[in-house]
Amino acid sequence: MIYLDNAATTMQKPRGVIEAVVQAMKTAGNAARGMGEAALWSSRLIFEVRVQVATFFNVSRPDHVIFTSNATEALNIVLNGLFIRGDHVITTDLEHNAVLRPLYRLQERGDIMLSIVPADSCGNIHLDVVESLIRSSTRAIVITHASNLTGNVVDVRRIGQLARARDILFVVDAAQTAGSMPIDMENLHIDVLCVTGHKGLFGPQGTGCLCLREGIDIRPFKVGGTGVQSFSKTQPQTYPERLEAGTLNTHGIAGLAAGISFVQSTGIEKIHRHEMSLTRRFYDGVVSLPDIQIYGDFSVDDRAPIVALNLGKIDSAIVADILSTTYGIATRAGAHCAPRMHEVLGTVSQGAVRFSFSWFNTEDEVDRAIEALRDISQHLVSNAHD
Amino acid sequence: MIYLDNAATTMQKPRGVIEAVVQAMKTAGNAARGMGEAALWSSRLIFEVRVQVATFFNVSRPDHVIFTSNATEALNIVLNGLFIRGDHVITTDLEHNAVLRPLYRLQERGDIMLSIVPADSCGNIHLDVVESLIRSSTRAIVITHASNLTGNVVDVRRIGQLARARDILFVVDAAQTAGSMPIDMENLHIDVLCVTGHKGLFGPQGTGCLCLREGIDIRPFKVGGTGVQSFSKTQPQTYPERLEAGTLNTHGIAGLAAGISFVQSTGIEKIHRHEMSLTRRFYDGVVSLPDIQIYGDFSVDDRAPIVALNLGKIDSAIVADILSTTYGIATRAGAHCAPRMHEVLGTVSQGAVRFSFSWFNTEDEVDRAIEALRDISQHLVSNAHD
Repeated sequence: MIYLDNAATTMQKPRGVIEAVVQAMKTAGNAARGMGEAALWSSRLIFEVRVQVATFFNVSRPDHVIFTSNATEALNIVLNGLFIRGDHVITTDLEHNAVLRPLYRLQERGDIMLSIVPADSCGNIHLDVVESLIRSSTRAIVITHASNLTGNVVDVRRIGQLARARDILFVVDAAQTAGSMPIDMENLHIDVLCVTGHKGLFGPQGTGCLCLREGIDIRPFKVGGTGVQSFSKTQPQTYPERLEAGTLNTHGIAGLAAGISFVQSTGIEKIHRHEMSLTRRFYDGVVSLPDIQIYGDFSVDDRAPIVALNLGKIDSAIVADILSTTYGIATRAGAHCAPRMHEVLGTVSQGAVRFSFSWFNTEDEVDRAIEALRDISQHLVSNAHD
Repeated sequence: MIYLDNAATTMQKPRGVIEAVVQAMKTAGNAARGMGEAALWSSRLIFEVRVQVATFFNVSRPDHVIFTSNATEALNIVLNGLFIRGDHVITTDLEHNAVLRPLYRLQERGDIMLSIVPADSCGNIHLDVVESLIRSSTRAIVITHASNLTGNVVDVRRIGQLARARDILFVVDAAQTAGSMPIDMENLHIDVLCVTGHKGLFGPQGTGCLCLREGIDIRPFKVGGTGVQSFSKTQPQTYPERLEAGTLNTHGIAGLAAGISFVQSTGIEKIHRHEMSLTRRFYDGVVSLPDIQIYGDFSVDDRAPIVALNLGKIDSAIVADILSTTYGIATRAGAHCAPRMHEVLGTVSQGAVRFSFSWFNTEDEVDRAIEALRDISQHLVSNAHD
């Protein structure tokens, strides 16, 4: 199988990630709960990974790194715990349902007012539009770092500057970029960073992080045992316990640490260049196919390693199914949990075939994907024209 | 190390659990998201594990098995999604903070009225007291299957009968019993069962389940992408998607399935007998030590495999620390996220040293723990008396 669905999850993990999970499954007790060697091993590991994550994303304090089960949970924690009634929130057409649905729910309840920055037909948003939507009640701008459908990257630095200058919180969904592009919370003026572990960071599924700038006040979402302050009727006020209830996923976090270590030792710029090279190679190889429609902005070099496309009017699921069954190439078709982006691109019913690349993909795999798509195009599109 | 902290997490996992996680980490795509072999492998696995869990706990429908990151998340989903303003809820002194804190928060917000069934000095609750607290507005009884501190088991069958007869929902926290004692949702009249994966089920950390009887209406807690119905502004209404947002922990769920398979192939009654035998052996070996205080009801045979105790007035953390550093025996000391139970037992400041056993413990380990405790008792208690 040629696995080109890395924007959904990186199936291929560095060997060290699997080894770290296995080691933890033979060693780990319950972090912060217990006096034995195994529990202390877990507590130390968890602490060290907080420090590692804080270093990796330049989070101001390691105790402001909250472990979650994925980016969706990180987003739910922040979006459900940050706002007070009457707050105005700005988000964009690019967002995943992990951002949109929590915000829609708050809007529906009358808790927030919501403005959505429109994307142009290339899938880009424009800073002046963001700025024009700011009101005195604007509390936060919530935005993806890169569209999971088009791969377009948002200029978070400029939006971060704008937000900081207007005293607006800046919340970034980095599900598609963490591990693939450098992210420095301080430099980009990010107040809240939501990350998943199982994509570009090469960690196991069931891992993720919520990284907070110091001074951000988020109400607890899940509440329960923390191993500390057991006699308080409420969740502890201090981070990370305030936002972490129940046993942490030590086994997964051990793997996440190894994944981040892999990115650190390989070099994130090197990973990004490799992924961009594959993305460009694939794009160049298919862009001239007859009746192909490629979504997103390929005039820039800095992108998430994603190429979403359609062949003529053919249902994206048919193309992806042929890619899988005839050519052994795994992609994702249909809607990509990004409903507004599909509306902008006019792909609500057709969906899109998404090819997404990772460090572990090769030029040969890309070339075979190009060949496969050329084959399919010749057969299907010519048939459709008959 | 002799690991006797299995009520916190079973450190020793069956080999098949680790193998299943490793296989998944080499094979799994993102369940319900993608058209390739890897994504379909994950989707099939997730479906099969739902069926397995449904069989194991006699859940009426596999699609009413919701995967969570632990029991705390399962409890937060149900407790935050079940009640409407004015509902009365009954819980008990035995509960873990994973039950108490969500309920306290709802009470504090004025959303529910809360009654708490008192425990007697043995750590037991009494059915007539539960019954006496029922009002016309009582919507649910939320109760642990076994105290994580004393190991006392609650007669859930009788409470379930009572609840069913009065048309009250019966929510059971089975964190301490799932995998150690048979649980049949139908027979026990359980409407909602909250389970963790990393204790008696021998699964990885980061896994758990919420099992629902058909017809239970729970509002979504986390919302986001589900891989289906992407164009709906709200979470899908159908289970399991209604309560599952974001990428599932396929790697962990693969391990959970192997853990449940281990319990199934070993035989849960056999596991329970072994654990009870170790528990009784330990109890009998230490009960006559001078100045020992053992908590909970050992007049019955059906318990969770837990013995919590103190030596004289000595801080539980000191005893556990000596057990660990001098004898290599891992236990848990201090408060056990069960504040009301500590209040009942008078161990708020002293805490308690908890020994908890699993299938993988041996009689020899128990005997060494007895010896260690006898040593410590001789030294510390006699010193304290000097």
